[in-house]
Amino acid sequence: MALLPVILSGGIGARLWPLSREAWPKPFIRLPDGQTLLEKCLNRLAALPDIHDFLTVTNERYLFPSREVHSQSSARHLQGHFLLEPEGRNTAPAICLAALWAIERDADATLLVLPADHYIDDARSWAADIQRAQVLAQSGQLVTFGIPPKAPATGFGYIHAKAVEQGQFEVVDFTEKPNLEIAQSFLEAGDYFWNSGMFCFRAEAILSALEALAQDVYSPVKEVWDNIRVDQLTTHLDPELYAGVASRSIDYAVMEKASNVSMIAASFDWSDVGDWASVSDLIDPDMEGNQISSDQVLAIETSGSFIQADGRVVAAIGIDDLLIVDTPDALLVARRDRAQLVGQVVDHLKASKSSAYLEHKSLVRPWGSFTVLGEGAGFKVKKLTLKPGASISLQYHHHRSEHWVVVQGKAMVLNDQTQQLIEANQSTFIAPKAIHRVSNPGHEECIIVEVQVGSYLGEDDIVRLEDRYGRPLGQA
Amino acid sequence: MALLPVILSGGIGARLWPLSREAWPKPFIRLPDGQTLLEKCLNRLAALPDIHDFLTVTNERYLFPSREVHSQSSARHLQGHFLLEPEGRNTAPAICLAALWAIERDADATLLVLPADHYIDDARSWAADIQRAQVLAQSGQLVTFGIPPKAPATGFGYIHAKAVEQGQFEVVDFTEKPNLEIAQSFLEAGDYFWNSGMFCFRAEAILSALEALAQDVYSPVKEVWDNIRVDQLTTHLDPELYAGVASRSIDYAVMEKASNVSMIAASFDWSDVGDWASVSDLIDPDMEGNQISSDQVLAIETSGSFIQADGRVVAAIGIDDLLIVDTPDALLVARRDRAQLVGQVVDHLKASKSSAYLEHKSLVRPWGSFTVLGEGAGFKVKKLTLKPGASISLQYHHHRSEHWVVVQGKAMVLNDQTQQLIEANQSTFIAPKAIHRVSNPGHEECIIVEVQVGSYLGEDDIVRLEDRYGRPLGQA
Repeated sequence: MALLPVILSGGIGARLWPLSREAWPKPFIRLPDGQTLLEKCLNRLAALPDIHDFLTVTNERYLFPSREVHSQSSARHLQGHFLLEPEGRNTAPAICLAALWAIERDADATLLVLPADHYIDDARSWAADIQRAQVLAQSGQLVTFGIPPKAPATGFGYIHAKAVEQGQFEVVDFTEKPNLEIAQSFLEAGDYFWNSGMFCFRAEAILSALEALAQDVYSPVKEVWDNIRVDQLTTHLDPELYAGVASRSIDYAVMEKASNVSMIAASFDWSDVGDWASVSDLIDPDMEGNQISSDQVLAIETSGSFIQADGRVVAAIGIDDLLIVDTPDALLVARRDRAQLVGQVVDHLKASKSSAYLEHKSLVRPWGSFTVLGEGAGFKVKKLTLKPGASISLQYHHHRSEHWVVVQGKAMVLNDQTQQLIEANQSTFIAPKAIHRVSNPGHEECIIVEVQVGSYLGEDDIVRLEDRYGRPLGQA
Repeated sequence: MALLPVILSGGIGARLWPLSREAWPKPFIRLPDGQTLLEKCLNRLAALPDIHDFLTVTNERYLFPSREVHSQSSARHLQGHFLLEPEGRNTAPAICLAALWAIERDADATLLVLPADHYIDDARSWAADIQRAQVLAQSGQLVTFGIPPKAPATGFGYIHAKAVEQGQFEVVDFTEKPNLEIAQSFLEAGDYFWNSGMFCFRAEAILSALEALAQDVYSPVKEVWDNIRVDQLTTHLDPELYAGVASRSIDYAVMEKASNVSMIAASFDWSDVGDWASVSDLIDPDMEGNQISSDQVLAIETSGSFIQADGRVVAAIGIDDLLIVDTPDALLVARRDRAQLVGQVVDHLKASKSSAYLEHKSLVRPWGSFTVLGEGAGFKVKKLTLKPGASISLQYHHHRSEHWVVVQGKAMVLNDQTQQLIEANQSTFIAPKAIHRVSNPGHEECIIVEVQVGSYLGEDDIVRLEDRYGRPLGQA
C-alpha cells in the first residue's frame, strides 16, 4: 500500500520574527540546534518504511530553498515532487490538490499530510503511530492525530474524542481555539486533544468527502487541476483560477462534518514551535535558567532568558525572563510570556512598508546567496556567493553598472559577448545594458564583492534572458 | 585677568558602552539630542567673557576628533591648544602640566579646569558661578565646585563645606565614594556636596601647592615638561618619562591637604552622565514613561524603557524599566537600576580580546572616516568617506591589494608614480607595495568602496611615507 507523504509548507510563522520573514519563513529558519524544521520533517520520513517519494505543497517562491533543504536531508534518496501555489488558500485546497495529484498516479494512494514546521522529537514513536493511522485510513477512515495536551493552551484547536481501543479514538467534535477557562476544563476532562494538523487518509476518501461536504473548495480546485502546467517534478497552478478558490481549512471543510473521522492519540512529543517561547522550550536551560547558544552573549545577573546572537556582541545585565533575538537588520526584545504578540510587530512593519518583515539582509538564490553589505545614495555593495558549478541567469540591467571583485575562487564571466576567467583579486566592470552572466567553474565557492552604481538600484532592475533554474524570463 | 579654560578629556566612559569605546570615548558620543558632551563643553565656553583660547589635555589618539568637534562648536573662534598625553595619569599630572603650560605664557594665568564629559544645562548660571570662583582664585584660593546633591549617590566623592557667604564655602573635608548609609546621612545633613571635578585656581597657586604637597607628581612632571616637543598648537610629552609619573587625582594630591581650599556651590544643573540611566534622565519620557528617540523602534506593552536604535529595527514587547542600546556591532540590554554594571562588560570584552570594547565599525580619521562593511577569509570591504580637500597619507601595504570603486564625488589617485582622476563609477587597483595616495579634489564628499584582498588584512599593515596631519610615519 503506497503511502505518500504530503508536506504542507505554507505558513510564514510571523511570531518567529525577526528570524522568520515572508521571503524566508518558518520551515527554513535554523533552530538553536542548527537544523531547520523542514529538514527535521524530511529527516523523519526516513523513519517510515516503503516510502519512495513525497509531495510538497508550497509557494512558488519557496521551491529553491525547499530543494536545497531536501538535498541536504536524510530524505535525499526520496524523489521530491512540488505542487506550487501562487498564493496560500489554507489547507483544504492544498490537500484537495495533493489528492488529485496522488490519485492520478495511483488510484489506491494513501496520503500522510504533514505540516512542514512542527517539531517532533521521537521519530520512532511517530512512525509507529503513522502505521496505525495507515491501517485505519485503508479502511476508509479520515484519520487525524491528536496531541495529549500538556497545558491549557488557547492557541490550538481541540479534538474531543472517545477511546475505541488502545491509542485509537472516535471523534466526538472539534473546538476552535478556546478561551483559558474552557481550555482548562478540556485539560482536566482528559478526553480532549490538541489538533496537530497531521492527517492520514486515502486520496479517494478525502476527495469524496470534499466533493460531498465542500463544493466551494472541490469544484474550483478541480478546475485549477484541469489547467495545471507540469514541468518535470513541479506542478504549477494558474494564479487567476487559484485566486478564485475559497480559503478553507481541512478541519472546517471536512473533518468537522464528516462521519468517518478517527483520531490517533500521539505517543510522540510535539510542538508547533509557534513562538520564541516554544523555541526556547527546545533548549535545556543552564544553571541560571538561561538558554544561550552563542559565545557572543555576555549575561550578567541574568536569569530565565533566551538569548540568540548573530554576529554581534549581546550584553544582558540584570534581566529576567526575556527573549532576545538578534539578526543583522532587526532585533527583538520581548518578555517571555508576551512572545505571542510578535506577530503585531510584523503587522506594523508591513504597514510601514519596512523591508524588515519581508526579507533578511542575506538572501538565498538557486545559484547560492547574496548579502547586502552596505548602501548609500547611488550605490549598493553586495557579497555574492556562487556554489560550485552554479551560474546566475543571463541578464542585463537598465540603470546600474556593476563592479565585480572576485575575492575567493574563480568566476567565468560573460560580459557583452566576451568570455573571461576572473580569478581571486581580479575585477571586471559590467556596464548598464551589457548582457552578462557569471558562473563558478571551480570546485570551491566563488565569492564576489559587487559594487553597484546607478540612479536606480532596486532588485527589480533585472532583465533575465536565460535561466537554468527555470525562473521567469524578461523584466522582473 | 586672563582665564584659561583647561579641558580634561581623558575618560573612556566604559559604562556608556557600546556607544563609548576606547577608540571613541565618552566626550565624543552623541547624546540623544545629537550633540556630543565635548561639543556642549566647548559651546559653554562662549558664555564666558574675555576668553581667547583654551587648552585641552587629552590622549594623542583623540587629537583629531577633538579638533573636529572644536571646529563645529560655538567655540570655533577660540584658539584651541592641545597637551597630548601618551597615556592617562589621572588629574594631578594633567593639571600640573596645564599650569606649567599656562604660567610660561602668562605668569598671572588663572586656570578653569573643566571635565570634557559632564552635562551642564544652564550656561548662564554656570558662567556666573565661575566669575565668583575667579575672584576667589585671584586671592590665592584653590576653588572647587560642589554640586548640591539630589540623591544619596554612592558613585561620587563628597565635599563637606561650611557656608562663608552666599554660595561660597570653606571646605571642611573630602570623602571618597561613601556607602549608601553614609551617603544618605550626607544628603540629610545639607552641608555635603558632590565633588564636580571642576576647579579654578591661579597657575602659580596650584603649582606651589603641588610642589609642597605632591612631590611625587610635581618633580617627575617638571622633568616631563623640560622634555616636551612643541608642534604648532600641540605639545607632546615623552612617553617613557610620562609613564614614570605617579597616577594621582588632584583631590588626593592637593585639595584634601591644602589649607587654602574654597568651594562654590553650583547654581546650575549638573550630571556626570556616568551611565545609561543618567543619559536617559536627560530625555523627557513619553506617556508610557519610555524614552525612545528613533522611529525604528516599535514598543508594544512597554514602559519605563530607554531604547536607542541605530540603523536597525528594534521591537520591544512587554518590557519595563530596561535600557536598550543598539549599535552596528554590539547590543546592550540592561535593567535600568543595574546600568552601573556595564563596565563589567567592557572588562569581559577586553579580557576576551574582542574588538567591541575598543573600536566601532565606523572610525573617524583626520581625512574623513571609514566603515567596515564586511569581511571574510582573505578579504575586507570598507567604505571610505573623504572630506573635500582631504588626503590620506602617502602609503603602501606589504600584504594586501586594494580595489577602489569611486561611488560618489571624485578621487585624485597617485598609484605607483601615476596620477589619475577617478570619477564616480570608475575604479582602480592598488597592488601590494605600490606607493599610493588618494585625495579629494572636489567640493563634495568623495565616497570610495574599497575591497581589500590579501592573506593579512590588519589595520597595521600600512607604511606611511608622508602625512599632512602629522601622524607618525613608517610602519604602523
